[in-house]
Amino acid sequence: MDGRKGRKEGGVSMNSNLWPYRTPGIPDEFFARVESVPITKEEVRVIVLSKARLREGYSVIDVGSGTGSISIEAAMQVGSTGRVYAIDRDADAIALLRENASRFNIKNIEVIQGDAMDALAAIPEVDVVFIGGAGGKMYDIVRLACTRLRSKGRIVIDTIMVESMNSALSAIYDLGLKDIDVTQVIIAKGKRISTGTMLLSRNPVLIISAEKV
Amino acid sequence: MDGRKGRKEGGVSMNSNLWPYRTPGIPDEFFARVESVPITKEEVRVIVLSKARLREGYSVIDVGSGTGSISIEAAMQVGSTGRVYAIDRDADAIALLRENASRFNIKNIEVIQGDAMDALAAIPEVDVVFIGGAGGKMYDIVRLACTRLRSKGRIVIDTIMVESMNSALSAIYDLGLKDIDVTQVIIAKGKRISTGTMLLSRNPVLIISAEKV
Amino acid sequence: MDGRKGRKEGGVSMNSNLWPYRTPGIPDEFFARVESVPITKEEVRVIVLSKARLREGYSVIDVGSGTGSISIEAAMQVGSTGRVYAIDRDADAIALLRENASRFNIKNIEVIQGDAMDALAAIPEVDVVFIGGAGGKMYDIVRLACTRLRSKGRIVIDTIMVESMNSALSAIYDLGLKDIDVTQVIIAKGKRISTGTMLLSRNPVLIISAEKV
Amino acid sequence: MDGRKGRKEGGVSMNSNLWPYRTPGIPDEFFARVESVPITKEEVRVIVLSKARLREGYSVIDVGSGTGSISIEAAMQVGSTGRVYAIDRDADAIALLRENASRFNIKNIEVIQGDAMDALAAIPEVDVVFIGGAGGKMYDIVRLACTRLRSKGRIVIDTIMVESMNSALSAIYDLGLKDIDVTQVIIAKGKRISTGTMLLSRNPVLIISAEKV
Repeated sequence: MDGRKGRKEGGVSMNSNLWPYRTPGIPDEFFARVESVPITKEEVRVIVLSKARLREGYSVIDVGSGTGSISIEAAMQVGSTGRVYAIDRDADAIALLRENASRFNIKNIEVIQGDAMDALAAIPEVDVVFIGGAGGKMYDIVRLACTRLRSKGRIVIDTIMVESMNSALSAIYDLGLKDIDVTQVIIAKGKRISTGTMLLSRNPVLIISAEKV
Repeated sequence: MDGRKGRKEGGVSMNSNLWPYRTPGIPDEFFARVESVPITKEEVRVIVLSKARLREGYSVIDVGSGTGSISIEAAMQVGSTGRVYAIDRDADAIALLRENASRFNIKNIEVIQGDAMDALAAIPEVDVVFIGGAGGKMYDIVRLACTRLRSKGRIVIDTIMVESMNSALSAIYDLGLKDIDVTQVIIAKGKRISTGTMLLSRNPVLIISAEKV
Repeated sequence: MDGRKGRKEGGVSMNSNLWPYRTPGIPDEFFARVESVPITKEEVRVIVLSKARLREGYSVIDVGSGTGSISIEAAMQVGSTGRVYAIDRDADAIALLRENASRFNIKNIEVIQGDAMDALAAIPEVDVVFIGGAGGKMYDIVRLACTRLRSKGRIVIDTIMVESMNSALSAIYDLGLKDIDVTQVIIAKGKRISTGTMLLSRNPVLIISAEKV
Repeated sequence: MDGRKGRKEGGVSMNSNLWPYRTPGIPDEFFARVESVPITKEEVRVIVLSKARLREGYSVIDVGSGTGSISIEAAMQVGSTGRVYAIDRDADAIALLRENASRFNIKNIEVIQGDAMDALAAIPEVDVVFIGGAGGKMYDIVRLACTRLRSKGRIVIDTIMVESMNSALSAIYDLGLKDIDVTQVIIAKGKRISTGTMLLSRNPVLIISAEKV
């Protein structure tokens, strides 16, 4: 394994000693966390990232960035020539994202505190938009976010709310996006106790992705 | 987007025009398929790959490679300096894997038709072992596979069978592996029909991963 | 066990030799089936019935009765002094329901072929309404159905569609119903094959129930 | 609804003012609870009860009765001519079961504190055995419990542990039971918050049922 140390890993993983791997999926516990700020948990996160189909050099918007786990993994995938615009209206989330970006030595995230409806207008055209939180305005945010997306760019939405599932789908159908994928994910984690290995569920998440025509 | 064409994408994605992306998650329908040969579907596959924590240059064993989707995505992640040993006892699976490797222009997979219990003995030490099929011999295959794994190497097992879940767990506990993660994944896919978007379930999969001490 | 033969089982289960049990949950394969007509599968069905809180003598409406499994089990629970109004617009479903009612020797179902929006108006006040199919008009059907419900009566809706989940919830919130319960159910069934017992998923169903003030 | 008060509801529901309904599915919050004692939650409980196919007059064993929710609902279904033997080794569970039986005015439960391996031997032949907890001895308890079961009697096991799933299946296969049903249930409950209705998962449960030849 000694020879591995000197290997070039694109322009990306040299950014990080905490996560030197090429595959996404940083364990949740590697991130600084606070109770009031949501995180997209690791198994859901890798599916969300896969639906974005990232390449080195891509620019990406992350609406409702929360703990920053999507922004940070996206930043690793797009590398130093790419860029992530992370938007959250909550000051605690913004502080946490900054802390986590620093922890993983990520330099290519531009942090924007504010309402997505305002912030989106000022961001140049991007390759991918993630929407992880919409504060009850999912339909409008999806529509506005798509104006920031280049042709063939991809949007990936994740939500745990029935109403937001419906609003996101409506917006995507109304916009005439193509290659629409709807994926509900339910994860249960094993926990070893004295009498065996029990399964503990996490909440179901709906992931909707599509491509701009 | 014109500038993107000339970008260097590590040593990896130039291998493939069908999947030029850095993130794993090739849609199932991109693979040649035959009904009798199983495939690890895209959402489960990206979780399986994430648990392996791949780096460029890694060598990997894929036991029960089936359609070859794990082998091919792993081959892309480890790049031209890495290597994937794909083992399957079924001739149809082997033929299908070869067809898919050719389709994605993957050169760094070594295809081995045969029983895993025989084949594993001849493979040099690797960084990661995937076990996607064990033909009812999960306990023995996990134990043997771990002898092929370097220290700190990772094993990732996925199964849909209750008995294999139990055998895989027993083997991992008995071997004293660490950083054990047990994840059940249930995926449901949306399908748009005239009256709305229904959700169609896929079978639950148990993914067990661990690290050799 | 000989003494059991002569026992009285309320006024209910003597109706049926095929299902002499007091607990609901008739196996799906006991019903006549046709491919084009949906059935509420047994595990989901017993949850749906439990949310209705049935008593002997209750009158019940079943909107979108399909194969008739809910109507028939409800008819058994409410007994000969109770009544089930089964509505479906599809002639095949109506024929199938009649066949199944006959198979289980159920006499207390009134079968109504037609659109629920028309049929509901002519039905007297009931204790419980089930809505298993709404043909894209969930919001209006829930609102109309609640006009047929007595005070403290219960409505139980099951749906597999994202849009209908949202419409049903909106209607229930707008109507100011109380004791609202939302339950997503995912069932996977074991299947024994040569190498073990695999789990095969069924589609997720959302069950929404509430009580009229 | 006044006329309903005087109705006869078999010999059963007059036992209870708290749950006057014929259908099982008592809401979890109707039971006295303590944190250290498990409860089979309402949606899983109605499926468990349905797999038992209860009739009035049946006698039933409940191994690992915990909070008593299965025992109490079974006692209601089998009525005053039936009998439930509830076994738990934990004194807190036993006290809780007694409190709940009293709360629902149930008289036909015989409470047995002790190890199931000892207690089962002293119980006469029954129609149904439930196993909700086996303390790591699932295989042996299933085998012993089946000796207490009449021909055509049913056994219903629920577990959240991978190892117990496997042991229960092994025992059932080894005993040559028939009409084997394996059902994994995942429930998520809706919770209304300011921005919509989120889904909160409960842990997956495996329910295995079978009939003695």
